[in-house]
Amino acid sequence: MSLVVLGTVALDHVKTPAGERKEMLGGSAAHFAMSARLFTGVEIAAVVGRDFPLPHLKFLKRKNVNLDSLVMSDGKTFRWSGEYQKNDLNTAVTKYTELGVLGTYIPKPVDHQRKASHVFLANFDPDLQEQFLSHFKTPQLIGLDSMNLWIATKQKSLRRLMKKVDLFVANDSEARALTQENNLIKAAQSLRAMGPEMIVIKKGEHGMLFLGPKDMFSFPAYPVDKVVDPTGAGDTFAGGLMGYLSRARKVDGATLRQACVYATTLASFNVQGFGMEKTAGLSMSAVEQRKKALEKFFSLKKS
Amino acid sequence: MSLVVLGTVALDHVKTPAGERKEMLGGSAAHFAMSARLFTGVEIAAVVGRDFPLPHLKFLKRKNVNLDSLVMSDGKTFRWSGEYQKNDLNTAVTKYTELGVLGTYIPKPVDHQRKASHVFLANFDPDLQEQFLSHFKTPQLIGLDSMNLWIATKQKSLRRLMKKVDLFVANDSEARALTQENNLIKAAQSLRAMGPEMIVIKKGEHGMLFLGPKDMFSFPAYPVDKVVDPTGAGDTFAGGLMGYLSRARKVDGATLRQACVYATTLASFNVQGFGMEKTAGLSMSAVEQRKKALEKFFSLKKS
Repeated sequence: MSLVVLGTVALDHVKTPAGERKEMLGGSAAHFAMSARLFTGVEIAAVVGRDFPLPHLKFLKRKNVNLDSLVMSDGKTFRWSGEYQKNDLNTAVTKYTELGVLGTYIPKPVDHQRKASHVFLANFDPDLQEQFLSHFKTPQLIGLDSMNLWIATKQKSLRRLMKKVDLFVANDSEARALTQENNLIKAAQSLRAMGPEMIVIKKGEHGMLFLGPKDMFSFPAYPVDKVVDPTGAGDTFAGGLMGYLSRARKVDGATLRQACVYATTLASFNVQGFGMEKTAGLSMSAVEQRKKALEKFFSLKKS
Repeated sequence: MSLVVLGTVALDHVKTPAGERKEMLGGSAAHFAMSARLFTGVEIAAVVGRDFPLPHLKFLKRKNVNLDSLVMSDGKTFRWSGEYQKNDLNTAVTKYTELGVLGTYIPKPVDHQRKASHVFLANFDPDLQEQFLSHFKTPQLIGLDSMNLWIATKQKSLRRLMKKVDLFVANDSEARALTQENNLIKAAQSLRAMGPEMIVIKKGEHGMLFLGPKDMFSFPAYPVDKVVDPTGAGDTFAGGLMGYLSRARKVDGATLRQACVYATTLASFNVQGFGMEKTAGLSMSAVEQRKKALEKFFSLKKS
C-alpha cells in the first residue's frame, strides 16, 4: 500500500499568544506527511523554490517522507504568514501570502506513484487537484480537502471534483460555507449528497464528526489546556486519518473509528508546539499513550 | 431522596426559524423539573402571578412535579421573549423581559423541603440563591447555574455562592466570561478553583465537558439535524443531571458519566420542539432508546 499527498511545502511565519516563529517548515503536504509517516510510507507531491533550506529537505527525508515528486523550481518558495489572537485560537488571520513558485506549478506524480492505493488531495486549486488525480490508475481511496478561498472562487470545479473522491475532509466553517447549512449534521448530509461517500467535519477544540453510508459518529478533541500554534492541525489530522486507513487496508466502521481517534490524537500534538515541533519527534508509543487517554476521555467507563 | 429546584416559572414568547409560540409554559425551574421528574420526585420553588394559566399548574402536577413552594403573588407572571436566528440557533436575542412578581419574590422552601438531599439553584439572582440555600439543613449535593447577567452585575455574590456548592453548571460563553479564559479546559480548571468540586460546561451542539476531582470527560451532543427551539435546553440538561444523581445516590465516576449522558439525551429532545412539546410526553423507554443511540454515536465499537 502507498499514500501520495498533493499539497504545499511552505515557509511559515506564525505569530500566536505563545510567541512568533519565522521561516518554519510548513504547508499542507508537509504537515500531512509528518503525521501519516507514523503509519505508512508517504510520498509528497509539491513544489519549492531555489531558496528552500536544504536542512528542511534532509529533515523530511530523515522522517521517511518520499520526495520523488517534490519539484524544485526557479523562484521563491511559497510563504504564508498568519497570526492568531488569544480569544480565538481557531482562526488564523492571514498577514501575507507569497505564492512564488506555487503560482506556476502543475503537479504531477512520478510514474511509480500512479499505482498508489491511497491519494490525498490537500488544500489546492481544485482544477489542479483534479488534473493531478487524473494521473492515478485505480486508487482504493481518494481523500480531498479544500478551503474557503476555493469555495468562494472555484466552487464549480470543487463540486465537480467532489464527485470523484471517496472522503471529503472539511472544517466546520468550510462545511457551512459550502452547504449554506448552519446545522453541522445537515451540513455533513449535504456534503455527502455532493458525491463523497464519507465526510469528516473537523471542529477544532470540539473534536470531529464522521458521516458515512452506514455510520455517523463523533469524538471530542483531546483536552489541550494550552494551544501554542494550531497551524497545520487539520493537515495533521488528515495525515493520521489517511495514514491509518492506508495501513489498515480496509474502511469498515471499526477501522474508520480507529482512524479518526488516531487523527484526533495527532492533531492534539500538533497544536501544542509551533509548526512541527511536537509532531516531528513523535514515536508510535507516545501516540498510543495519548490515544488511550483520549479514548478514556470519552469513555462511559471510569478506569 | 428528594430534589428541590429554585428557579423561574415563566410565560415564554419565542420566535425561531421553525415558527413562533406565545404564552408558553417556560422558565428554568419548569424545564428542569420536566426533565428531572423522569428520574426522581422533584419540587419547584418559584413564583407566578395571578394571571398564570391554571392549566399550566395542572399540567405540572400531572407530571408529578411538587408545587408546595410555588408561590402565587399579586401581580403578573414573569415573561420572557426571545428570538433565534437561522445562522445561530445557540444564542437567543432577548426581545423583552417583564419581571412582574419576580421583582419582589423572596424564595423560601417549605418546611419539609429543608431536609432535601439534592438542591439545584437554577439561574437566579445569586444573593437570593444564597439566601434560599441557607434554609436547607445538610444537602448531599448542591448544584448551581447562573448567567451572563449575574456574572456582569453580581460577580462577587456569585463567587461567594460558588464556594458553597458542589456542582457548577455553565455554558461555554458563561464559563469564558466568568474565568476570562478562552480555552475551555483552562476555564473549567479555573471555575473549579473558585470552589465547586465538579464543573459541567455545556457546549450546545458540541456536547459537554465535565471536570471533577478525579475525572475529566467529554461527550458529544446527540446529532439533531433540526433544532426547533433551544430555549430551556440547559435547564433540561441540568434536570437530567441532578435527577439522575438524586436517584443514583452516589457521585462516583461511572455514575457521573451516566448522569451526563442522560442529561445530554434529555437536552436533545428539548431542542426538537417548542417549549416542552417534546420533553412533556417523554417516557423512560424513549429516553433509554435515544441514550443508547447517543452512546453508539461516540462509541469506538461499531454495532
